[in-house]
Amino acid sequence: MSWNTFGRVFRFTTWGESHGPALGVVVDGCPPGIALSEKDIQPYLDARKPGQSKYTTQRREADEVRILSGVFEGRTTGTPISLLIENTDQRSKDYSEVAKAYRPGHADYAYDAKYGFRDYRGGGRSSARETAARVAAGAVARLVIPEVEITGWVEQIGEVPLLYSRFDKGEIRNNPFFCPDAETVTRWESLVENARKAGSSLGALVTCWAEGVPAGWGAPLYAKLDSELAAAMMSINAVKGVEIGDGFAAALGTGESNADPMRPGENGGENGPRFMANHAGGIAGGISTGQPVTCRVAFKPTSSILTPVDTVDRDGNATQISTKGRHDPCVGIRGVPVVEAMMALVLADQKLLHRAQCS
Amino acid sequence: MSWNTFGRVFRFTTWGESHGPALGVVVDGCPPGIALSEKDIQPYLDARKPGQSKYTTQRREADEVRILSGVFEGRTTGTPISLLIENTDQRSKDYSEVAKAYRPGHADYAYDAKYGFRDYRGGGRSSARETAARVAAGAVARLVIPEVEITGWVEQIGEVPLLYSRFDKGEIRNNPFFCPDAETVTRWESLVENARKAGSSLGALVTCWAEGVPAGWGAPLYAKLDSELAAAMMSINAVKGVEIGDGFAAALGTGESNADPMRPGENGGENGPRFMANHAGGIAGGISTGQPVTCRVAFKPTSSILTPVDTVDRDGNATQISTKGRHDPCVGIRGVPVVEAMMALVLADQKLLHRAQCS
Amino acid sequence: MSWNTFGRVFRFTTWGESHGPALGVVVDGCPPGIALSEKDIQPYLDARKPGQSKYTTQRREADEVRILSGVFEGRTTGTPISLLIENTDQRSKDYSEVAKAYRPGHADYAYDAKYGFRDYRGGGRSSARETAARVAAGAVARLVIPEVEITGWVEQIGEVPLLYSRFDKGEIRNNPFFCPDAETVTRWESLVENARKAGSSLGALVTCWAEGVPAGWGAPLYAKLDSELAAAMMSINAVKGVEIGDGFAAALGTGESNADPMRPGENGGENGPRFMANHAGGIAGGISTGQPVTCRVAFKPTSSILTPVDTVDRDGNATQISTKGRHDPCVGIRGVPVVEAMMALVLADQKLLHRAQCS
Amino acid sequence: MSWNTFGRVFRFTTWGESHGPALGVVVDGCPPGIALSEKDIQPYLDARKPGQSKYTTQRREADEVRILSGVFEGRTTGTPISLLIENTDQRSKDYSEVAKAYRPGHADYAYDAKYGFRDYRGGGRSSARETAARVAAGAVARLVIPEVEITGWVEQIGEVPLLYSRFDKGEIRNNPFFCPDAETVTRWESLVENARKAGSSLGALVTCWAEGVPAGWGAPLYAKLDSELAAAMMSINAVKGVEIGDGFAAALGTGESNADPMRPGENGGENGPRFMANHAGGIAGGISTGQPVTCRVAFKPTSSILTPVDTVDRDGNATQISTKGRHDPCVGIRGVPVVEAMMALVLADQKLLHRAQCS
Repeated sequence: MSWNTFGRVFRFTTWGESHGPALGVVVDGCPPGIALSEKDIQPYLDARKPGQSKYTTQRREADEVRILSGVFEGRTTGTPISLLIENTDQRSKDYSEVAKAYRPGHADYAYDAKYGFRDYRGGGRSSARETAARVAAGAVARLVIPEVEITGWVEQIGEVPLLYSRFDKGEIRNNPFFCPDAETVTRWESLVENARKAGSSLGALVTCWAEGVPAGWGAPLYAKLDSELAAAMMSINAVKGVEIGDGFAAALGTGESNADPMRPGENGGENGPRFMANHAGGIAGGISTGQPVTCRVAFKPTSSILTPVDTVDRDGNATQISTKGRHDPCVGIRGVPVVEAMMALVLADQKLLHRAQCS
Repeated sequence: MSWNTFGRVFRFTTWGESHGPALGVVVDGCPPGIALSEKDIQPYLDARKPGQSKYTTQRREADEVRILSGVFEGRTTGTPISLLIENTDQRSKDYSEVAKAYRPGHADYAYDAKYGFRDYRGGGRSSARETAARVAAGAVARLVIPEVEITGWVEQIGEVPLLYSRFDKGEIRNNPFFCPDAETVTRWESLVENARKAGSSLGALVTCWAEGVPAGWGAPLYAKLDSELAAAMMSINAVKGVEIGDGFAAALGTGESNADPMRPGENGGENGPRFMANHAGGIAGGISTGQPVTCRVAFKPTSSILTPVDTVDRDGNATQISTKGRHDPCVGIRGVPVVEAMMALVLADQKLLHRAQCS
Repeated sequence: MSWNTFGRVFRFTTWGESHGPALGVVVDGCPPGIALSEKDIQPYLDARKPGQSKYTTQRREADEVRILSGVFEGRTTGTPISLLIENTDQRSKDYSEVAKAYRPGHADYAYDAKYGFRDYRGGGRSSARETAARVAAGAVARLVIPEVEITGWVEQIGEVPLLYSRFDKGEIRNNPFFCPDAETVTRWESLVENARKAGSSLGALVTCWAEGVPAGWGAPLYAKLDSELAAAMMSINAVKGVEIGDGFAAALGTGESNADPMRPGENGGENGPRFMANHAGGIAGGISTGQPVTCRVAFKPTSSILTPVDTVDRDGNATQISTKGRHDPCVGIRGVPVVEAMMALVLADQKLLHRAQCS
Repeated sequence: MSWNTFGRVFRFTTWGESHGPALGVVVDGCPPGIALSEKDIQPYLDARKPGQSKYTTQRREADEVRILSGVFEGRTTGTPISLLIENTDQRSKDYSEVAKAYRPGHADYAYDAKYGFRDYRGGGRSSARETAARVAAGAVARLVIPEVEITGWVEQIGEVPLLYSRFDKGEIRNNPFFCPDAETVTRWESLVENARKAGSSLGALVTCWAEGVPAGWGAPLYAKLDSELAAAMMSINAVKGVEIGDGFAAALGTGESNADPMRPGENGGENGPRFMANHAGGIAGGISTGQPVTCRVAFKPTSSILTPVDTVDRDGNATQISTKGRHDPCVGIRGVPVVEAMMALVLADQKLLHRAQCS
């Protein structure tokens, strides 16, 4: 089934292919009266934009967003907000090879198996270009949750992690890797540059924190805050794993080591208790606790590599394929604004859901 | 928001608390004409049932399921199937301590913050007893996807993994740990027994495979098969991480090491290509490839431990709490039937969604 | 598709057949902290209950409701509320005739065409007995909207309308017809009694008002308050038409005759303007205006009649069928509590949706 | 709540205001491989287009549709289809009067009450211009149900009905009223012309038939085919009533007069029985019977009239307003393509839902 809508009351629907005329998103359920213009959205698109450094794909897209509806006199009206981004750098390259053979690790074979045929130009709908639409929607979502500050960064590229002892939030936007550790940047530069030159690719881990989420957002069971985040993150292209709080590491510990003890909060606890640890990632029983909501996302190395890989063509014959074209050597890097956007979109939805039931 | 329904066309809605009179589930959207009786459901409930060995909670529940609707003359009618399980062993113990103070790591504080008060008896709605309802629903889901074989097992308890070189599927149901490696069972016995005696708890990793899923189930983007699985697994109590295929390990590799090359399939490829690896976990672009769908889930150690932990009471005063009562020293073990059930429920939904759009 | 859930954030899911062991409903999304016991629900079930007078079916059901979850210490917890009603008077009559031949006007043929077979005992899932579950859910919904007073009545039976000049709200619960006009009661008594004796049946019109709905509930377009009401009412068994406000009569008039002029409201308009008419039924552009929300619903005469009607059997052979058994000669009468319940369920949902977006 | 998506698996989301730069719709869940180009959509938009005759609004919009995604090499890919229609004739007239005072019968006051402010230019989101997006989506839906032929017509304008004894389907597209009775056209011409000259407005009844719907589409209860149709039709601007089959007239009859007797169908009943009447409108128990699905919709006269009507301004002061501008004297006329579109959209969704559960 095609399913291009996410969210329960704050919802967005994306559309568009890598090589179509445009892509876009319709944001529905946004509260009215919020100041909104293209200037609130564009910086996030710029952060995700390709062609910014030699470490990302050389496709050059202005990624200029236009608001087509839902805003009047500079404020949201409460009706659907349609955002449009034109594709301007779809090269008329030769796709005949991709049209015929399946790139292993890409969605080529699966799409054909499902739909009987596919838009093979640049991956069509399966292209990560779709994430521009999410980033645009995420910029709107941020305005719905001004109490929340969302910060994402790359934590590891390939086998090279950053050092948290050198963590500096202010550094994140100072380098092309969204890296909060300036010393690690140098190592990643050569790592990614080598991969790029070799026509290879690298995986990455991205971490995202949301600070300022009040206690009480989320739900028991099937709209748990962590469940919604897991769905949101796993829906991003190339993501293969999601953790909340300590995640897999928590499984190694004991109830004692994993406890998040509580002490009386400040000012008589008016903002809840003080937590002495945050193994839980700010979520207990599917509901936020008032601590930072934290998650970690694993991006696989893209399958777009120069090394020829065994595959079959549409007729089932053995062949090989190598992916030329313009590609990100490490898609996880540009994944940071996307992960942040999905965090914002989930939280905005949960904020509205919470006040629906409990205000 | 309370949200107790999961699924898009094959949907189920669970209800019930740990210490209420009963719990249950309504399964809606099930195809008609499927042979179904309590006997098809009970074995899965028995596998999850507490009190089976000294390694799980000593609460004793018969967990006998009754079908109240949706079946006529032994076959599903296509209308909602209501399944009911009575609670029979809710001890009338003294809950005054839990009523007053928050157990760190449990949902106590978050529920209070959200709803203003909570059913504190045995965790109320946040109790893992709810998973009995999912397991019952999952048994129905399995009948919707007879082409699929689902197998889950515990892969690691605390820091002790099994050895895959000794993997024996037939062994899984032979021991109280759902462990496919007989030699590891002995080690886990002492590990869990020690934790139990110490009033401590352990985390675990659970792996689940679905074999026989044809290529084409799933969707691009927001109902991606992997996204749905992530939501499903993360909605299980105590789960903090989800991986599809190689998951986090994939992030360490390169495009070359992570490739799943294809070769022509048997009989002229009538069942699709032969894949030479399955790093992707049977899913590409959100859509199944015909390989086994694989995921791995991290269960945290429960917060129900004897060691007193710092906490606050409902009035914000500092106190300590230790959890006596009957608890699983390692909830991940009984998580296996739950993980299997969620896998079945997601796949049944996706099968129906696929034929909605593409049959 | 089977679809047994209604609502967007305040949702309910019903289950159960006419001749199964029980029927019930799960109410999800109810705000926490609302005082709720069986006593809040039972009066509405009693109002709908069969066997109350000779003008309704003689099936005798206690229709006693049990709350199985979602309530703790007398208040809603915010988690799903499971309500169960046992079937106690399913007569073990001979259904062989209905099993073989299709009752024209009933769902028999359509169910068979869809599902391949059907639970023919008393209509199975298509029985109006399901409406007991809605009425129970509606009683919960009313508690969510204490600002709203909902009043339904029968306006016409067959060709005999009441006289609005004699409208007396206090009279509605004084007679077995939910008739606000005492003089018309006498006429309906003989009308319905004659139909019952003749084994015939009669249609009816039911009107429902909701007073106290503040301006602002509803939505533009696909969750318009009137659209939701139309869906809700048309989902009731035997309903074939729905009007909001003047409905079909509005189509006969002009813009001038159909206008609802406004004058300044009391106390400086703090509660909105004063409307000089309510042709619109309290809804403009899908959103409530602060006037009473009004709708009118047409119930067809049931197809359960003694006169033999031409039909075919399951093998396609010509035959005739007459419906004996215990039936309502005019289902519209007992439709009143059902219409009221659906009104309450729609409004509760819209209230929560409104504060999700706009609070 | 803003809710701009309709459908369960075949879904569409509309956006755009009367005087914004464009409006559009995203169609999601469309089966793959269907031939689709702008030429398949444009004729339906042209039928709805304003400015076609002197009997409709004189606003002139080309209403040219562009497909921005979801189609590759002339066929649907199974991914979302984005359709865009530019607004070209939004006159920069003076809206200061409408900005300040509420037009009775319009959504002005309700929008303000809900959202705190509104886009007052031409009604903003509440404008019937939105229906262009539905008509475009409906054209796609028709391609999903090629077995179904949908025909809508105006049955009555004001108090003047057509004569069914003169019904000629071929006549419908021959006159500006979608009238199947040529003789009535003359009467409607003068009726509507007089209303237009007087700055008044008229209501209308629109009937729609869907022939070729096989038995089995629909659902018991909350996604009943009739319930979905009621929601769909009532979501159209200015609609105040919906009937299925005999509708309100059915309430006047008896079980005998309302029966739809069945006789053995042709060719051994391979296509189901032959029905001797269709009082039910082709739906029993929420499920299609194989007969034509029929519904009737009441459009109120628009509130856009020249006669000044009492109202209040945003500050609550008494004033009067008369609506100049360009308006349809009878919006029901251009409602025909919209009603047809909604019929197609509901049926396409139900077709896919049916095969999800029952194929």
